[in-house]
Amino acid sequence: MTAFAELMAFQRETEALAQVAGRLGWDQETMMPRAAAQQRSEEIAALEAVLHARRTDPRIGDWLAAADPQDDVAAAQLREIRRGYERNSKVPGALAAEIARCTSLAQGIWAQARADEDVAAFLPTLEEVLRLRREEAAALADGGDPYDALLQDYEPGATGAGIAALFDRMRPRLVALREAILGADYQPPALGGHYPEAAQLRLSREIARAFGYDFTRGRLDLAVHPFSSGSGSDVRITTRVSENDPFNCFYSTIHEVGHACYELGVDPDFALTALGQGASMGVHESQSRIYENQLGRSHAFTGWLFGRMRQAFDLPVADADTFHAIVNRVTPGFIRTEADEVQYNLHVMLRFDLERALVAGTLAVADLEEAWNNRFLADFGVAVQRPSDGVLQDVHWSVGLFGYFPTYSLGNVYAGCLHQALRRAVPDLDADLAEGRTAPATEWLRETVQRHGKRLLPGEVIAAACGAEPTEAPLLEYLEQKFRAIYRL
Amino acid sequence: MTAFAELMAFQRETEALAQVAGRLGWDQETMMPRAAAQQRSEEIAALEAVLHARRTDPRIGDWLAAADPQDDVAAAQLREIRRGYERNSKVPGALAAEIARCTSLAQGIWAQARADEDVAAFLPTLEEVLRLRREEAAALADGGDPYDALLQDYEPGATGAGIAALFDRMRPRLVALREAILGADYQPPALGGHYPEAAQLRLSREIARAFGYDFTRGRLDLAVHPFSSGSGSDVRITTRVSENDPFNCFYSTIHEVGHACYELGVDPDFALTALGQGASMGVHESQSRIYENQLGRSHAFTGWLFGRMRQAFDLPVADADTFHAIVNRVTPGFIRTEADEVQYNLHVMLRFDLERALVAGTLAVADLEEAWNNRFLADFGVAVQRPSDGVLQDVHWSVGLFGYFPTYSLGNVYAGCLHQALRRAVPDLDADLAEGRTAPATEWLRETVQRHGKRLLPGEVIAAACGAEPTEAPLLEYLEQKFRAIYRL
Repeated sequence: MTAFAELMAFQRETEALAQVAGRLGWDQETMMPRAAAQQRSEEIAALEAVLHARRTDPRIGDWLAAADPQDDVAAAQLREIRRGYERNSKVPGALAAEIARCTSLAQGIWAQARADEDVAAFLPTLEEVLRLRREEAAALADGGDPYDALLQDYEPGATGAGIAALFDRMRPRLVALREAILGADYQPPALGGHYPEAAQLRLSREIARAFGYDFTRGRLDLAVHPFSSGSGSDVRITTRVSENDPFNCFYSTIHEVGHACYELGVDPDFALTALGQGASMGVHESQSRIYENQLGRSHAFTGWLFGRMRQAFDLPVADADTFHAIVNRVTPGFIRTEADEVQYNLHVMLRFDLERALVAGTLAVADLEEAWNNRFLADFGVAVQRPSDGVLQDVHWSVGLFGYFPTYSLGNVYAGCLHQALRRAVPDLDADLAEGRTAPATEWLRETVQRHGKRLLPGEVIAAACGAEPTEAPLLEYLEQKFRAIYRL
Repeated sequence: MTAFAELMAFQRETEALAQVAGRLGWDQETMMPRAAAQQRSEEIAALEAVLHARRTDPRIGDWLAAADPQDDVAAAQLREIRRGYERNSKVPGALAAEIARCTSLAQGIWAQARADEDVAAFLPTLEEVLRLRREEAAALADGGDPYDALLQDYEPGATGAGIAALFDRMRPRLVALREAILGADYQPPALGGHYPEAAQLRLSREIARAFGYDFTRGRLDLAVHPFSSGSGSDVRITTRVSENDPFNCFYSTIHEVGHACYELGVDPDFALTALGQGASMGVHESQSRIYENQLGRSHAFTGWLFGRMRQAFDLPVADADTFHAIVNRVTPGFIRTEADEVQYNLHVMLRFDLERALVAGTLAVADLEEAWNNRFLADFGVAVQRPSDGVLQDVHWSVGLFGYFPTYSLGNVYAGCLHQALRRAVPDLDADLAEGRTAPATEWLRETVQRHGKRLLPGEVIAAACGAEPTEAPLLEYLEQKFRAIYRL
């Protein structure tokens, strides 16, 4: 066997074991009996130790030095394996283990603190998580910017400065749009009504199929926080049900279908290789967002959904236009995950600025809550009344995810670019969406984005799909056009 | 750390990974999307390779040589770790891998051959599986009897000669009882009726709870072939539903609850150690069988079940005595897994004699079908008409399980002994069973059998629980008494 073949065989087993670890996580959130949590943590730790040893195995360095790639795909395989190996080898094993141990405990402490509305109970833990991740960032940065080093885990090639400049360009137009909407004469009504769980789940499955989700390679279950899990030919999604708010279920489903279809759409030749997953968190979010928003919340598709919901439920909405307005209703709110398309990125910008300051050391953990609340009042015009609506609302920082938040907005920006290119490529898309057919859109996305997996870098894949470097302009134009129509501005 | 502590820490991670592998198997039979099978086989192979490397890690030999056990439990831990290590170290890695590869493929070939009623399509595969397992048996036997060597994987301490003598003592009384039953004037009617799936599953869960199954450490799902899976604090069961035959569902559930309660009943201090599982397949089957038969098919418990089924279904049975007779109805049949308590062991004896001859080399694979059919006619008085009713009915041999079948009957024998001792210990048990309360029985079994895990050897744990070495007498007396009453003999 050549060095390249040996490396690929070794990597294939590692990828297979990583799939097993991912499925353990899925099981934990969907199936695991509740008293099994302690044993499960030992099972996960044992498997993660196996994975860490494989990912830092010195033979990888030897194989990389000796391997001779025969084509572009092989070169991309080596690039991705090298990136992972060099990244993991920079972090001392003791630090990696300490981060794993600390973040695993921190999640529970955060959840309890949030339930108790007790920021002080969480701060010492956050202090420790941040200290460890800053230490890791310093090891990864090689003298460069620590926040940029953390970003690479989620969005290879992105920089804090670049994202800050992007957000500075986006913020004024989003704020202006939000103010216009909230001051508009027309305001859509609240939905009202009652939507039984079983019927929501039936329609959810129909919607998932309408977006091309392949149930022979996946399944749909319930979870507290919806997620998508797995790569290759076993990619599972979850949703949740609130009997007063069916859109929570349906749009969670569509969002996760977007993530899942990305993984299922990767070239099967890349399965169980370093290229066999989405290019980055940002590109991943571009797929979930364009499925959920540009397609799922379009006037055409909500017209189809309105018809299906009238058949399935006692729906107190008079017409498809009102239904479309309700689906896209903009209201003041504290919670990022419940935010509409207009305000969502403003929530992300707040977190980005705060976490960047935390990592830089210019904001102390002790001052974080005050900084959050001041910033929220300035950006959203309302005062946070309780920590679960403010600094304690997201799990991310407790598990050490510094540098992750901006990928949500990068995903929105990418989705805006892709949507513009998609509309050019499929000009009569709305006729299909109005009949619940998404195939012209989802097949275009599969061909232009999804099938490449990690073969192209995040910026490359979006640029190749759109024929231009991604910018915020298409997203902002789409939002302004859509919401001025809905709010009759 | 002492050598003992290092060994225990290493073993703990191995046990945790083995739990992960077991849960992958559970997922495959209950949750996995059907097009994920190919990827799954790679995931399992990667994890099994990790486990095999750990189980034959030469450091285990060093730790075993240096470890100094401080008490009986520590000595038992070392005994079990040593047994596994020596066993696995005797088998060349290439042979172990070849057996894994071959049996994984063989199961599919067997299933297809069974569906096609085509013995010839399966024989070359069976030939190969048998060849590999005989090679493994020779490696394990150290010059001793190869079949005995295979038996040790399932029932440590058992011998082919001992089992043959046991079966020789059992056969005449079982045959005589069967003949008396089939010739009796009174014959219970067939059940009839229709039993909707949802209601069967609801009652199944109630029955599982009645037998003490702890749903906070387990769950109940559907599977084609019911099984129990896992150890420690995550032990899951499955059942199946036929809408014409509710007893298939209910007694599959009780059987698997017996297996699961054994694992859940092991001393929590033994979790994720070499002692943290049932003592042997035979002792395991003793628990599933005593739950299913001596308790679940008792006159007292079926009286309770009769009442519950009358509430849940439109039940065409007039009274509790008739219901009890229907539950225990003896009819001629070809299929082991559908056999009643009287005939079940006769099915096992047939397989034991044939597989012992196969392993000894005195029966050729080419002659197996004829040998099966001749023996079946002699033992059961009816001629096998199609291979799926005969030599192709069980999966075991296709996956290399030679030496496994007799543990089913050992389980029945052990269950007979335990039942006799239980009735002495809890004389008024029937009053509880008649109210659907099994706790006096299941708690006695947990204290006397289940909590010991692998600390005691299989023979020891039954002898300790019963106060005497196990024999076939209690089982045969129980069967004769029970079925003479039902059939009014």
